[in-house]
Amino acid sequence: MNVTVRGRTRHYRTVAFDRSRNSVLLIEQRLLPHRFQVIATRDFRDTAAAIRDMIVRGAGAIGAAAAYGLAQGALAFRGVDRRNFSSHIQNVFKTLAAARPTAVDPVNAMQGILGILRQGRSVAEQQALALAAAEEFAAEDVRHCEAIGRHGVRLIHNRMNILTHCNAGWLAFVDVGSATAPLYAAQARGKKFHVFCDETRPRCQGATLTAWELAQQGISHQVIADNAAGHLMQRGEIDLVIVGSDRTLGRTGEVANKIGTYTKAVLAKRHGIPFYVAIPLSTLDWNLKGGRDIPIEERSGNEVLEAGGVVTNPQSASRKPRLARVRIANPSSGARNPGFDVTPPELIAGIITPEGIFKPGQLWPERRRLGFVD
Amino acid sequence: MNVTVRGRTRHYRTVAFDRSRNSVLLIEQRLLPHRFQVIATRDFRDTAAAIRDMIVRGAGAIGAAAAYGLAQGALAFRGVDRRNFSSHIQNVFKTLAAARPTAVDPVNAMQGILGILRQGRSVAEQQALALAAAEEFAAEDVRHCEAIGRHGVRLIHNRMNILTHCNAGWLAFVDVGSATAPLYAAQARGKKFHVFCDETRPRCQGATLTAWELAQQGISHQVIADNAAGHLMQRGEIDLVIVGSDRTLGRTGEVANKIGTYTKAVLAKRHGIPFYVAIPLSTLDWNLKGGRDIPIEERSGNEVLEAGGVVTNPQSASRKPRLARVRIANPSSGARNPGFDVTPPELIAGIITPEGIFKPGQLWPERRRLGFVD
Repeated sequence: MNVTVRGRTRHYRTVAFDRSRNSVLLIEQRLLPHRFQVIATRDFRDTAAAIRDMIVRGAGAIGAAAAYGLAQGALAFRGVDRRNFSSHIQNVFKTLAAARPTAVDPVNAMQGILGILRQGRSVAEQQALALAAAEEFAAEDVRHCEAIGRHGVRLIHNRMNILTHCNAGWLAFVDVGSATAPLYAAQARGKKFHVFCDETRPRCQGATLTAWELAQQGISHQVIADNAAGHLMQRGEIDLVIVGSDRTLGRTGEVANKIGTYTKAVLAKRHGIPFYVAIPLSTLDWNLKGGRDIPIEERSGNEVLEAGGVVTNPQSASRKPRLARVRIANPSSGARNPGFDVTPPELIAGIITPEGIFKPGQLWPERRRLGFVD
Repeated sequence: MNVTVRGRTRHYRTVAFDRSRNSVLLIEQRLLPHRFQVIATRDFRDTAAAIRDMIVRGAGAIGAAAAYGLAQGALAFRGVDRRNFSSHIQNVFKTLAAARPTAVDPVNAMQGILGILRQGRSVAEQQALALAAAEEFAAEDVRHCEAIGRHGVRLIHNRMNILTHCNAGWLAFVDVGSATAPLYAAQARGKKFHVFCDETRPRCQGATLTAWELAQQGISHQVIADNAAGHLMQRGEIDLVIVGSDRTLGRTGEVANKIGTYTKAVLAKRHGIPFYVAIPLSTLDWNLKGGRDIPIEERSGNEVLEAGGVVTNPQSASRKPRLARVRIANPSSGARNPGFDVTPPELIAGIITPEGIFKPGQLWPERRRLGFVD
């Protein structure tokens, strides 16, 4: 999407590849919304670290980052021995897959590329195929998000108030986003609406990334504490919820997403507010039999005990914004920090996919159309 | 309760009165948990400002602060004219009542004192009665909290995991607390349990005040993001919820409390987890006909957009902890910030009062016992 920095507007993708430097280009999302910066990773290990450390985050974006990271690893191989190359690629795959164990997109993306790569008859051919497949993966991610927008736009009517949780915007994909795609499509059609962005503690992706995105695109929005959505629903001030997903089970319709998503779904159900999940096909997991099998990352307690941003008080002597982290919580207390939760299908009005909007129970019957391969 | 500062343990009350200086003594709660400091207000306007600015907060504590503030205002009057005194007192009352419009405790506390004060036959007698009544109000607050503990302790069993929201601890009262009273009583009886403290954005009273209290008393606890409780309930890791209330409607059993309370009640109901509200009698509002009539403070958006604490990174050169506020959210975004929400009676297993535990629907039939006066 377009980003305006110091008055200059330019189109960016969240993840891109610089072939001349064999480098993955990533928007440094941990500095947003306070600084806009693009970083270039040195090698596939550096790309894996960027995924693990959440320089890049979000289902599609880490899928594309892993895809490009696999190509980056492939291109870095020196030699012609296919067996050595193959074991090198396995190592690259494992390193990138281990960076974010809950997410399914990196593994799906890389497995697709591995399948294509096997068609190459030499190391050089396989290297070229890996990069072409990564580029195609990124292009498909954009096409999928645009299709989500075309299908989801019909849910948005004038004067609606829409709640979203975390960031499933273009920063979470290669471009356009999943949960935001219907918003951008509705804006393009001249519809007027307002978005409430859940702050999304502990990492605050709603207050930082989603709010930044919507501000960049000129969409009316406000940040709310994660605690406030229930009250706003009670008062009739929320008409629709759209969130993304890190992993959606094709067999059951269960949705793993950022911690707090389940809570919003429970509240929406109580208030008769439709709760939608927007996903590209790569988010669908056709293997797992139930939500209990989804590994839930237990992340560092410091995320809960601290917060980060630009110091407002005491004010800095210099005019340059000073970034800092503060310890909010009692110094001698610890924290629990599950990173994700699982929303059951009975709370979900529909799953917005590039192929259309489906009830959670329709995913499995429609699996061929949705990319399931035996 | 006891507070240990630099190895020295001493008993403190949250609110007290220094007669020699005609000053209300308050624990400066905005500095907790990072610094422990007691402040002395100069006059009743200063006390009202302390209530408004949340140096002191919590139902019972602001009731006692207002009671002492009224006495402070009465004692500051110079003269013998009863009519002038009476109009002065009305002014003091209005100033203190306006400091926190949603809360019912300051008004209830001060109305009780005004009733007693009228029995005085001279200004001097009325001044003495005002102070005696304020002292009795504070003493009764402590007795009520102790009685809440005696009744509530039976809900707590060994190995339970208990969720609480915001701070309804001793810092929210004169001593002991409401939601925490059963915890402290259970600890005194040797029961073993674990407490999850909701962070309670935007002001983070759970992460700061409740966590500090529990740490001071040596109770096992962890802070969680407000988003995490739903997931923990899903996984069977929460057995009981106890919260406080800023205003509970005696006629309907509706409970106004810190924003996010309603959400926890909805989640608890879905998971069959008992949800209790602990209140002294002063929190009961017998006038309002329904929750819609409760004024909900819309507080500054900056509370949502920022957070405060001790700077951890970049580290300070000096060893002294440096307090700062940081802007978390996108600089060009605004926020909605309702301070409270209303939980309907069907979500509440019981109201723990100094007179026993009641179903929300029992409050009105039992109103005589619970302090209702026609």
